[in-house]
Amino acid sequence: MIYFTPGPSHLFSTYQKHLIEAMNLQLGSINHRSDAFRKIYRHTDEQLRLLMDIPSTHAIFFASSATEIWEKIMLNCVDQYSFHLTNGAFSNKFYDFANALKKSPARFAVEEGQGFNMNDILIPEETELICTTQNETSTGVQIPVDDLMKLKKKFPSKLLCTDLVSVAPYSAIDHTMMDCSFFSVQKAFGMPPGLGVWIVNENCLAKADQLKNKGLNIGAHNTLESYFKNYKTFETPSTPNVIAIYILGKIAEDMNTLGIANIRKDLEVKADMIYDFAKQHKDFEPLVNQETHRSRTVAVLNTVQPSAEIIAAVKQHHMAVGSGYGKNKASQIRIANFPATSVQQMEELLDVLNTL
Amino acid sequence: MIYFTPGPSHLFSTYQKHLIEAMNLQLGSINHRSDAFRKIYRHTDEQLRLLMDIPSTHAIFFASSATEIWEKIMLNCVDQYSFHLTNGAFSNKFYDFANALKKSPARFAVEEGQGFNMNDILIPEETELICTTQNETSTGVQIPVDDLMKLKKKFPSKLLCTDLVSVAPYSAIDHTMMDCSFFSVQKAFGMPPGLGVWIVNENCLAKADQLKNKGLNIGAHNTLESYFKNYKTFETPSTPNVIAIYILGKIAEDMNTLGIANIRKDLEVKADMIYDFAKQHKDFEPLVNQETHRSRTVAVLNTVQPSAEIIAAVKQHHMAVGSGYGKNKASQIRIANFPATSVQQMEELLDVLNTL
Repeated sequence: MIYFTPGPSHLFSTYQKHLIEAMNLQLGSINHRSDAFRKIYRHTDEQLRLLMDIPSTHAIFFASSATEIWEKIMLNCVDQYSFHLTNGAFSNKFYDFANALKKSPARFAVEEGQGFNMNDILIPEETELICTTQNETSTGVQIPVDDLMKLKKKFPSKLLCTDLVSVAPYSAIDHTMMDCSFFSVQKAFGMPPGLGVWIVNENCLAKADQLKNKGLNIGAHNTLESYFKNYKTFETPSTPNVIAIYILGKIAEDMNTLGIANIRKDLEVKADMIYDFAKQHKDFEPLVNQETHRSRTVAVLNTVQPSAEIIAAVKQHHMAVGSGYGKNKASQIRIANFPATSVQQMEELLDVLNTL
Repeated sequence: MIYFTPGPSHLFSTYQKHLIEAMNLQLGSINHRSDAFRKIYRHTDEQLRLLMDIPSTHAIFFASSATEIWEKIMLNCVDQYSFHLTNGAFSNKFYDFANALKKSPARFAVEEGQGFNMNDILIPEETELICTTQNETSTGVQIPVDDLMKLKKKFPSKLLCTDLVSVAPYSAIDHTMMDCSFFSVQKAFGMPPGLGVWIVNENCLAKADQLKNKGLNIGAHNTLESYFKNYKTFETPSTPNVIAIYILGKIAEDMNTLGIANIRKDLEVKADMIYDFAKQHKDFEPLVNQETHRSRTVAVLNTVQPSAEIIAAVKQHHMAVGSGYGKNKASQIRIANFPATSVQQMEELLDVLNTL
C-alpha cells in the first residue's frame, strides 16, 4: 500500500534499511548517557541543521510528539498572553492548550480554508508569544514563508513560533526570524510516529528562566532549562526514543545527499499535479481558493462523491488517501505530498482519481 | 553483546520478529483513529491485563516514558499534598517533580540502600496521594508486595501509586489495592525506549475532574480526562508510538504463553544466583543489607575494584553491566535481571565476574 495519508504517512524509502542497521548495532539497548548515544544525537543535530538551515543560535530537542511540544511551549514561553493565528483544527487546538494551561490566549481567527493577510493582523500589546501554524493539516492552508517573516518584522519584540508539522523540511523559513518551531516525524520525514522535534533559541530559554524565577509552574518533565542543560553534552532530560533519533539523523542525511533543493522541486511538481488535476476534474475542487495559501504538502479537495467511496476505490489500487478532517470527513479528501512518494506514484494516484 | 544494564537493556528474544512483522504490516503508516489501530490497542490491553492481573476497574494508557507519567500523576491526582517514600535517585526525582509543579510534597526518606518499615510510616492528614517506587533502580531496593498492600490498608482513604519501572511484569502487586502504577518498556519488557504505560483506576479520574472543576491546571496534553475519553474506543489523545504499542502487546502475549509464573520462577533463580555469588566473592557485596529489601530485578553490588575496570573486563566477553548510579558510579555495579536474559547467560556473566 502506498500511503498518501497526511500522517502517519508513507515511510521514507530508506527507513527500513536504517531500522535494520539500528537493530544490528543493538541501539535499542544502549544507555542514553553513553558516548554511543551522544554521537547519535550529534549526528542527527548536524544533519537536521544542514537540511533545514538551522543556525547555531538554535538548539534542537526531542520530545514524543508535536502535541507534547505545544504544552511545553505554553509552559516555558508564556506567562499569560499568547496570541494565535487560527484557521483549523490544529491551530485551534494549540490555542485550546493555552486555555487548558490557564493562560489567557487571544486569537485572530479566519474561516477554515482561509489564510491570513498579515496586514490585517493586530495583536494586543501584552502579547508575549505569537503562535502560528505554517501548515494547517486539517484544511490544507499554508502561511507563505514571507508572510511568517513579515510577522516578525511587524512585531519584533514578541516571541514568534510556528508549527512545522507536515511541512518540515519542505518549509524554507528563516530560523533567525523564528524563536522556535517544531514538527513530528510521521509526516514529511516518512517515519512512524513517536518523536517530536523542537528547534529553540535562547530567547525562549530566557523567557522560561524569567517565568521560573517568578515562581510559575513551567512543568517538570522536558522543561527548556533541563533540555538546554543536557544539550551541552548531547544528552536528553530523560530516556528518549533512541532509535527514532538515530533514524531521523540517517534520513536527514539521505535527504541532504539528494539535496533539499531537489526535494523541494519534486514536491512542487507533485503539488502542481494535484491542483492541476482538481482544476480539470469537475468532481474535485481545492478547499483553499487563494493559490498562495494552498498548502504544497497537504492538499485538501472538496469532493462530490462521499469521501469514503473515493477512499475505498483508491484502496483497491493499493493506495491510501486521507478523509476530510472532523466535520468535513465525508465531503473532502486529503492528499499528503511528502518526499516518501514519487512523481510516478502521484501520477498513478491521480489517474485512479480521474477514473472515478 | 548481552546487555545486563538496568535499562535500556537486552531486547526480548521475540522483539525483532515482531518488529519485522510490524514493518510487513506497514504499521508505521496506519492512522491512529482507524480500526487497525484500535485492534492493536485492544490486543495490547488484553495481554497486559492477563500478564499483570490488571482488573477491569483499571484502564491502561500509553505515554512516552515513566518520567512523563510522573508529571501527569502530579498534575491530575494532586491538588497540593503528595507524600513520597524516598530512598534513591528515582523516588527523589518523583518528589522533585511535585515541587517543580508547585505542589507541597512531603516525604519519608531513608538512606540509599535502605528499605522501609511500613510500621514507621506516618503521613500528614492532608495527604492526597502516596507515591512509592516499588523498585528503586538506582540502589536496587525493592518494596515487597505485602508492604505496599499494608500501606493501602493503613491509609485506605488516600490515593496510592507505585512506580513499577524495572519491576513490571515481575511485580505481583494486587492492583485492586493500587490506584495507579506505571512503567516504561525498556526495562523488564525488553524493548527499546519510547513508551510508558500507565495503569489507572477511576478514583484518579475523579480526582482529576475535581481538580479541573476547581480551576486548577491539570495539563493539556495527556490529561486523565482525555485519556479516559479516548480509551472508550481504544484510541489515544494524540498520535502515539503505534509500533511500540503493537510490539508490547505481542511480547506480553509471548510472556503469557511462557506463563508469568514460569517467568517469575526464572527471575528468582537468577536473582538468587547473583546474590549467592556476591555472598561468596570477597570483592563484591550487595549494597542492600536486608534480604527482603533486595531487588529481585536490579541487583546493586558494592565493588572493591573500580566499576569501570569490571565493566571493561565484562565487555571483553561481549556482555554489559551497569555502573553505579550518580555518586556511586565508580564503586558499584548494577546487574539487571530481566526476562530477556537466560539462566545460562547469567551463569556466564557471574563466571566472568568470578575470575576478576
